[in-house]
Amino acid sequence: MSKEFKQNPKKKYTVKDEFINLAHGSGGKAMHELIEGLFLDYLQSPLLKALEDQAVFELSGKTGTSRLAFTTDSYVVSPIIFPGGDIGKLAVAGTVNDLAMSGAKPLYLSVGFILEEGFPIKDLKQILASMRDTATEAGVEIVTGDTKVVQRGGVDKIFINTSGIGIINHNLKLSASRACVGDKVILSGTMGDHGTTILIARGELELESEIQSDVAPLWSLVEKILECSSEIHVMRDPTRGGVATTLNEIACSSNVCIQIKEALLPIREEVKGACEILGLDPLYIGNEGKLIAIVGANQAELLVRQMQQHPLGSQACIIGEVIESPQGMVVMKTAFGGTRIVDMLVGEQLPRIC
Amino acid sequence: MSKEFKQNPKKKYTVKDEFINLAHGSGGKAMHELIEGLFLDYLQSPLLKALEDQAVFELSGKTGTSRLAFTTDSYVVSPIIFPGGDIGKLAVAGTVNDLAMSGAKPLYLSVGFILEEGFPIKDLKQILASMRDTATEAGVEIVTGDTKVVQRGGVDKIFINTSGIGIINHNLKLSASRACVGDKVILSGTMGDHGTTILIARGELELESEIQSDVAPLWSLVEKILECSSEIHVMRDPTRGGVATTLNEIACSSNVCIQIKEALLPIREEVKGACEILGLDPLYIGNEGKLIAIVGANQAELLVRQMQQHPLGSQACIIGEVIESPQGMVVMKTAFGGTRIVDMLVGEQLPRIC
Repeated sequence: MSKEFKQNPKKKYTVKDEFINLAHGSGGKAMHELIEGLFLDYLQSPLLKALEDQAVFELSGKTGTSRLAFTTDSYVVSPIIFPGGDIGKLAVAGTVNDLAMSGAKPLYLSVGFILEEGFPIKDLKQILASMRDTATEAGVEIVTGDTKVVQRGGVDKIFINTSGIGIINHNLKLSASRACVGDKVILSGTMGDHGTTILIARGELELESEIQSDVAPLWSLVEKILECSSEIHVMRDPTRGGVATTLNEIACSSNVCIQIKEALLPIREEVKGACEILGLDPLYIGNEGKLIAIVGANQAELLVRQMQQHPLGSQACIIGEVIESPQGMVVMKTAFGGTRIVDMLVGEQLPRIC
Repeated sequence: MSKEFKQNPKKKYTVKDEFINLAHGSGGKAMHELIEGLFLDYLQSPLLKALEDQAVFELSGKTGTSRLAFTTDSYVVSPIIFPGGDIGKLAVAGTVNDLAMSGAKPLYLSVGFILEEGFPIKDLKQILASMRDTATEAGVEIVTGDTKVVQRGGVDKIFINTSGIGIINHNLKLSASRACVGDKVILSGTMGDHGTTILIARGELELESEIQSDVAPLWSLVEKILECSSEIHVMRDPTRGGVATTLNEIACSSNVCIQIKEALLPIREEVKGACEILGLDPLYIGNEGKLIAIVGANQAELLVRQMQQHPLGSQACIIGEVIESPQGMVVMKTAFGGTRIVDMLVGEQLPRIC
């Protein structure tokens, strides 16, 4: 590690803004400020404080104890229908994935619709059909729901919230705080497909492409990972803010440095091309069907080979490793042999991609 | 029962509209059409089909089985701050109440914020503070969350989704389908306070009033009810669509007739006055801190006295009883001695009250 990087003390976030701006929903720095500087301060929940994408707790009933995961996500993607999916598929897959990342088998989902007056019933039917199909694919049941309708102009077409419950049937403790020096960093496939697809689907750019969103429920891949390896320390899906932001969260939570190699990062040629034209860095673009796993070094190669046999992990690869310092930071060995800091997303480059 | 009422065969709903309108979010007939004619058709979940305000299921983990309730609600109320509460208090109390109505002790909530770009942080702080206070009052913890920001004009200020998990520690099976002929119908307090407050708070009417929303988490009252009585068959909170719509849902689910007496219906003078001026029927106005309990006749009087000792039930009273026919209908003995049908809400009289 070159010496010019200073050690990064544990960040303390505060909210200095007086008004919400788009960056507060980016997944990046401003969102962390809002969550850590405001929500945690007010809500004072130990489980919330863990800053995981889901809460994990034990529930004791009359006849015993279950270990459960619970998560929520609202979806405001625009456009609502895009190559590879729609807001319904996204809403089911996204919540399934947040459960799966804790190693929980997703069981039950709730769905809350907020609909704009005038929304076409035929579009609602298409969205419901893809929610049903994605739920079936993921093995979850949508068991409870709510519908609100807002006057024209009060909401943009349709927003969907899905919350989910899963059950943890193993003894692993997965957490963003458990990355250890020496661990390998695995990415399950190509970066940036979802965000790039959404941006192009908006049709504001003179750009045509065959790129499709990678949106998919990842539980079946996670199930395979849990079967194959006993040394999984962290699993996260790099959605808003992309791989760079997710790795920063992990580095910060675990007080380690994550070093990735540019040459190892998997990316489709079309996505790379689109990003170059648009001036975007694919490391910061959200994915909806990919996961990052941080695992003990001795199991990493074998695990990657196992993941490659699964359709959702066919391009899985090791992209880096966990080193000691500078703590709380992500660094990248560039293709030209240099090293650069990969910071958390600052500002908002792609609003409403999920 | 006078003979002019025809027996009401089990209703089969279908959606004839091509576009969503405000009535689809009313809690009344159009919403039932949407849910039963579309959502159930597509999503095919047995638990959803029960049409309860929460899903109840057993979860078997490694060490045993727990009986859980799971529910979701999105809140789009306008204005977001009103006499007696704000959207934050409403979001926590509403989901706590949906859990409590199944007899579940509310434990954990998720919260999903959808914020408009430009929303003032100071309003967000006020909302967070009231979420925290209401959660503390109800004994629940907000354990997981999500924040989305939408560009100016894409959402009206702030929408909140709360989903919740509760645990059922008793053997009662509460359901809208369990009202029995002979049962008494208890209402825990005055009707229409919340909806009337919201309508007046919009300031579009030349009307001033001291009316406050009744928004409150009802778990402590429910806990007392469960302690006092073993013959609770149905509990529901009469929110959107009001007491009339909730009683219709129960009559329909249980295949019974519910007969209420106008003279027994509790209503504040100010609410009655406002409703008369506005041409609204308080039976159809949403409440946010009231419950309907349908209980075995022999325990009803005692239960009402117990409820009256609780601050949230001080005006509890019996408002009617369950009779055999006409099945699936609600009828009211009027103050003048006549009988009239009380149908489910048709259309939408008060959009965005919750």
